[in-house]
Amino acid sequence: MISFNLKTTARNQLVEITDQVREAVAASGLKTGLCVVYCPHTTAAITVNENADPDVVHDMLLYLNKAVPKDQPGFRHGEGNSDSHIKASLVGPSVTLIVDAGDVVLGRWQGVYFCEFDGPRTRTVMVRVAG
Amino acid sequence: MISFNLKTTARNQLVEITDQVREAVAASGLKTGLCVVYCPHTTAAITVNENADPDVVHDMLLYLNKAVPKDQPGFRHGEGNSDSHIKASLVGPSVTLIVDAGDVVLGRWQGVYFCEFDGPRTRTVMVRVAG
Amino acid sequence: MISFNLKTTARNQLVEITDQVREAVAASGLKTGLCVVYCPHTTAAITVNENADPDVVHDMLLYLNKAVPKDQPGFRHGEGNSDSHIKASLVGPSVTLIVDAGDVVLGRWQGVYFCEFDGPRTRTVMVRVAG
Repeated sequence: MISFNLKTTARNQLVEITDQVREAVAASGLKTGLCVVYCPHTTAAITVNENADPDVVHDMLLYLNKAVPKDQPGFRHGEGNSDSHIKASLVGPSVTLIVDAGDVVLGRWQGVYFCEFDGPRTRTVMVRVAG
Repeated sequence: MISFNLKTTARNQLVEITDQVREAVAASGLKTGLCVVYCPHTTAAITVNENADPDVVHDMLLYLNKAVPKDQPGFRHGEGNSDSHIKASLVGPSVTLIVDAGDVVLGRWQGVYFCEFDGPRTRTVMVRVAG
Repeated sequence: MISFNLKTTARNQLVEITDQVREAVAASGLKTGLCVVYCPHTTAAITVNENADPDVVHDMLLYLNKAVPKDQPGFRHGEGNSDSHIKASLVGPSVTLIVDAGDVVLGRWQGVYFCEFDGPRTRTVMVRVAG
């Protein structure tokens, strides 16, 4: 397993980690198989989406923040970050990618993103390949 | 890796691809392991849900279209398909299935679906097995 | 593949299954690889989230029940559980975990949850490891 850290700078932020994932797969030496990118945090997530126009990321966060308000009637969790936990489970804790010819297979417009929902914090991402 | 194409016929559509996935697993020769069904597009997704009553798919799309409206105040992405990108990350770019006895293990009511959120288009689905 | 059953006691409920997943991985003998926890039902899901404060689970269910109402104008599915199917696809049918040193790698606050969205029922969870 290869892991790396990153620092987020806002409460809600999508940080592209495609390069780090590619480096981890290259370092593993695996040529053909699968690659899991895993988030060991409960208020963050991993997703794949467009990395060409940054407005896509802007609009995804705009939607998520509106759809999952920070404060909602009936919320009990004392830390005030229930929305962060909810977003984490909606987006999901990992993505599984295909590895071919020693590299992850991504569509033309796809990038891998770490999704911060309770930053800013220092976070860890884990990458594991399997042949 | 085995990939296949499909043509979607509506902006939002769930297309069952269970047969194609089963064929890809059979063609791989794998008897025991995992199977990843991956969508290389940023405005589409893969899910597993009921394939017995088509009204389930109808209701899922009804919900998603209402929960993620096409146009929302503050959206910046110029292509006008921010909702498609958002739906893609909510549903997710892949599913990971269990392979046993040379076939994917699905529950009695489960089918695998390609989820089109910005069609109609010609799309690609990738299938990779790992033992 | 190792599978186990559980009984849910409410229509919507998150049941922690971390111990059962750890036992399945230990029983498999796998030291290094991946572990897929799979839900063969179409009105239930698997997720990873905080297992320290039960109020997090409470707030997640509060949100999901409000965001995906049981009855919505236009729903056609005759069984009246379209919301359960929708929640299942939003949360997702499986999680993929990293296995290291013979155990799943989880963050400090992470637990694995079976998400019941149409209980109470007896349900099955499947666990498959791959090296």
